[in-house]
Amino acid sequence: MDVLTELIRSLPAGVVVTDATATEKYRYDWSRDASAGTPLAVVRAEDASQVQATVRWAAAHRVPVVPRGAGSGLSGGSSAVDGGIVLSLERMRAIEVDADCQVAVVEPGAYNAEVKAAAAEHGLWYPPDPSSFEICSIGGNVATNAGGLCCVKYGVTTDYVLGLDVVLADGTLVTLGGKRIKDVAGLSLTKLFVGSEGTLGVVTRAILRLVPAQGARSTLVAYFPTAVAAAQAVVAVRSRMRPSMMELMDRWSINCIEDYKPMGLDRDAGALLIAQSDAPGTSRGEEVALMEQACSAAGASEVFVTDDAEEGEMFVAARRAHFHATESRGALLLEDVGVPVPLLPDLLARVAEIAARHRVEIPVVAHAGDGNTHPIVVYPPGDVAAEQRARAAFDEVMAAAIALGGTITGEHGVGRAKKHALPDQLGPDVMALTRKIKDALDPDGIMNPGAVL
Amino acid sequence: MDVLTELIRSLPAGVVVTDATATEKYRYDWSRDASAGTPLAVVRAEDASQVQATVRWAAAHRVPVVPRGAGSGLSGGSSAVDGGIVLSLERMRAIEVDADCQVAVVEPGAYNAEVKAAAAEHGLWYPPDPSSFEICSIGGNVATNAGGLCCVKYGVTTDYVLGLDVVLADGTLVTLGGKRIKDVAGLSLTKLFVGSEGTLGVVTRAILRLVPAQGARSTLVAYFPTAVAAAQAVVAVRSRMRPSMMELMDRWSINCIEDYKPMGLDRDAGALLIAQSDAPGTSRGEEVALMEQACSAAGASEVFVTDDAEEGEMFVAARRAHFHATESRGALLLEDVGVPVPLLPDLLARVAEIAARHRVEIPVVAHAGDGNTHPIVVYPPGDVAAEQRARAAFDEVMAAAIALGGTITGEHGVGRAKKHALPDQLGPDVMALTRKIKDALDPDGIMNPGAVL
Ligand SMILES: Cc1cc2nc3c(=O)[nH]c(=O)nc-3n(C[C@H](O)[C@H](O)[C@H](O)COP(=O)(O)OP(=O)(O)OC[C@H]3O[C@@H](n4cnc5c(N)ncnc54)[C@H](O)[C@@H]3O)c2cc1C
Ligand SMILES: Cc1cc2nc3c(=O)[nH]c(=O)nc-3n(C[C@H](O)[C@H](O)[C@H](O)COP(=O)(O)OP(=O)(O)OC[C@H]3O[C@@H](n4cnc5c(N)ncnc54)[C@H](O)[C@@H]3O)c2cc1C
Repeated sequence: MDVLTELIRSLPAGVVVTDATATEKYRYDWSRDASAGTPLAVVRAEDASQVQATVRWAAAHRVPVVPRGAGSGLSGGSSAVDGGIVLSLERMRAIEVDADCQVAVVEPGAYNAEVKAAAAEHGLWYPPDPSSFEICSIGGNVATNAGGLCCVKYGVTTDYVLGLDVVLADGTLVTLGGKRIKDVAGLSLTKLFVGSEGTLGVVTRAILRLVPAQGARSTLVAYFPTAVAAAQAVVAVRSRMRPSMMELMDRWSINCIEDYKPMGLDRDAGALLIAQSDAPGTSRGEEVALMEQACSAAGASEVFVTDDAEEGEMFVAARRAHFHATESRGALLLEDVGVPVPLLPDLLARVAEIAARHRVEIPVVAHAGDGNTHPIVVYPPGDVAAEQRARAAFDEVMAAAIALGGTITGEHGVGRAKKHALPDQLGPDVMALTRKIKDALDPDGIMNPGAVL
Repeated sequence: MDVLTELIRSLPAGVVVTDATATEKYRYDWSRDASAGTPLAVVRAEDASQVQATVRWAAAHRVPVVPRGAGSGLSGGSSAVDGGIVLSLERMRAIEVDADCQVAVVEPGAYNAEVKAAAAEHGLWYPPDPSSFEICSIGGNVATNAGGLCCVKYGVTTDYVLGLDVVLADGTLVTLGGKRIKDVAGLSLTKLFVGSEGTLGVVTRAILRLVPAQGARSTLVAYFPTAVAAAQAVVAVRSRMRPSMMELMDRWSINCIEDYKPMGLDRDAGALLIAQSDAPGTSRGEEVALMEQACSAAGASEVFVTDDAEEGEMFVAARRAHFHATESRGALLLEDVGVPVPLLPDLLARVAEIAARHRVEIPVVAHAGDGNTHPIVVYPPGDVAAEQRARAAFDEVMAAAIALGGTITGEHGVGRAKKHALPDQLGPDVMALTRKIKDALDPDGIMNPGAVL
């Protein structure tokens, strides 16, 4: 019996998919990584025991395993590996809300939006909100420590993960943490698995902290002559308060969204800030006033405030649509660099300089309130010289972020797209430390090989 | 040249202390662990390079190293080890506030209170506030992932650690994280070292996140006929909001504090809740009203509210004095068990039952809003039979917490006091995983041997 047949026979019918047409869509994430391989098979696990069986089999035969959520990743983290298994969690989607404990116990394939909806039924809220919340899974969110729009006030995924079930590289299932809020018994293993991008194990269950439903929000929209001016407003606001959202889009991005879904944005503005306050009672007005003031002082050409939830959501939806709007604009290299907030204007200035020097376009959208930006290097597909310039610019943007005390990735993860730059940020000693942990937990290197390390 | 002489010569005069009288106070933490050993020497490092030199020397000669902050630990985490080195960080106390980035860059020996004070000079706030904040170090806080009173709203130490410098078991110094807020480049190593209790490396610097100064607070004080009734009020409040403090003391604790520092607390009450709201504007009043209501509904005999900061602080100071007040009451075994918040009444009921059955006193104070409690087993020192009953009760309280889906330690750490119970909570597979990480990072087991594992 060949190795694959052994796997197929050990699992219920239909769980292992080998047909090339059917497996094709499991080869890529949203970044359509050109180096993605061709898997031996896709395992569409129905429960944790099938995940364990698959990993045990893979360990026995040293077959690579690439865990996969919804494939919305932007860094090639779930690109298939030649001769490996794609272990899809898409069928494990159960969500159970424990309203008394204010937690959701969630299978990894459940979408972020589904968790939010389940929580809302109990008047509760799961804050982390990547723009992709309607098309990404909780397992992927945990594996990348996903961020989003409300993080500036409410933190990122790791802040909401109280417990995890993880299938380790030898097939053992460990249960970490639980429904208690505080727990320091033993090493912080839950936190170690958050953000590990499938390189240390497969998340098969997460216990997520919920909070009372978010209160009413006011939305501020401000236009600026330049992106740097908008960034200066962000710095001023953040030095005094924590808005519940603070997003930036530059001129190119505004126009791209207007082309995609016209909503009357000012195409001539240099940049647009969308900020929200959800502070309770009268302090909401105070926060908004403070933001208005900071925007005007930074040279905003127009500031508009609305307490109308639907009107506010229109602008936020426009921001969220941004990646979809850019898809058709050319070949894209997606950055996710971050810097300490006060250095945001410097970062944007350097990105503009890099774009000019390499003659490529690098529009920017940003979770600006956290200093986390998404410069997108755009180039004409098929133009080899342009692609070379684009790749050079891509690397220089990361180098600029590192030079400013920042990071090459604030929320998307290293995956395969940024692995070559990781040592530049971490340095040899931290790389060696990382390698020690990887080797201790996955000595044969079967878990998502080629990602991160 | 003997091994110790080699160390002494490699460091400046006065750094290595070997005199037994001088080293005596470095043998124990606040728990006065009876099994504490006698160290070869105490190294009072002045900077990270001396920490490195010490650890390199220890690695070469396989000498145990016990990192030590201010020795306020309650679980024997920094108990000296026979023939080992106590590596004291007490002289490394520099604090630098970067107000623009809203971070403090802190050496490990700086006291928590000193960081708070330095932040306050810039209108900023470092929230984590163990009751011991005036006598504990940031290094110890990081190593134990310390909690405190405001955690119920503001989170614990790990939520504020953006970066760490750590000297690993081979003497390498790694710099993890930085001043940026979001960063997912590589494994979550910063988070792994938080809470590692000196078993993976020595923290020589921390980058701590600061937030704008806390707003005005209102304080609610409520008396209840029983501790369980008070716990029910906590559950009701927490199901609807997150107060900025929610502490519980039972009758024994109230009386103990009254004896220590009379302030007119009701000695006949079954329990006292001290809660605060720091919500902005009018919502503070709303939160307080909600808490008042919940207390009355749970059977509070008296509820008292004050907006006067000093008056409120008096009650909080009483709560903070609790451990000091109990010191003279007998021999103590300090618990730190936690459960999911809704199970707090069950936990308290079980503790009372265990106390009655073993004929020991187990008064309780609690960071109740987080479900984290400190039952303190008190027995007459020198009474062997009572000590046996006390130890049995101590273990049963931990077992009760585990049975309720809780933890044996919510904030104090496992140290040496709770190490025997850790496998009961984590189980063999998580213990094995922990061991793998420990072995990978500290193959010779020189870092704080006998603690945690
Ligand atoms: C339009 C758009 C907007 C986006 N906006 C944001 C944003 O605002 N913030 C943000 O953080 N991201 C954003 N992303 C990126 C992406 O949605 C996130 O990285 C998301 O967390 C990935 O989830 P997924 O389920 O799609 O994971 P996948 O793409 O399937 O996988 C991502 C990584 O997680 C690993 N993984 C997945 N599931 C598991 C599991 N169960 N166990 C172990 N490892 C696993 C994979 O191996 C891979 O390394 C956006 C993407 C798109 C397309
Ligand atoms: C009156 C009183 C009240 C308390 N209240 C609280 C409370 O509300 N919340 C709470 O969480 N704790 C509380 N504690 C416990 C204690 O103060 C905390 O655990 C504190 O974090 C310990 O800090 P320390 O500097 O005293 O550490 P130490 O006692 O010196 O050491 C504690 C642990 O940390 C390790 N360590 C210390 N420094 C370093 C370093 N630089 N690098 C690596 N490892 C290191 C040690 O090896 C040891 O394992 C209280 C203690 C007392 C006495």
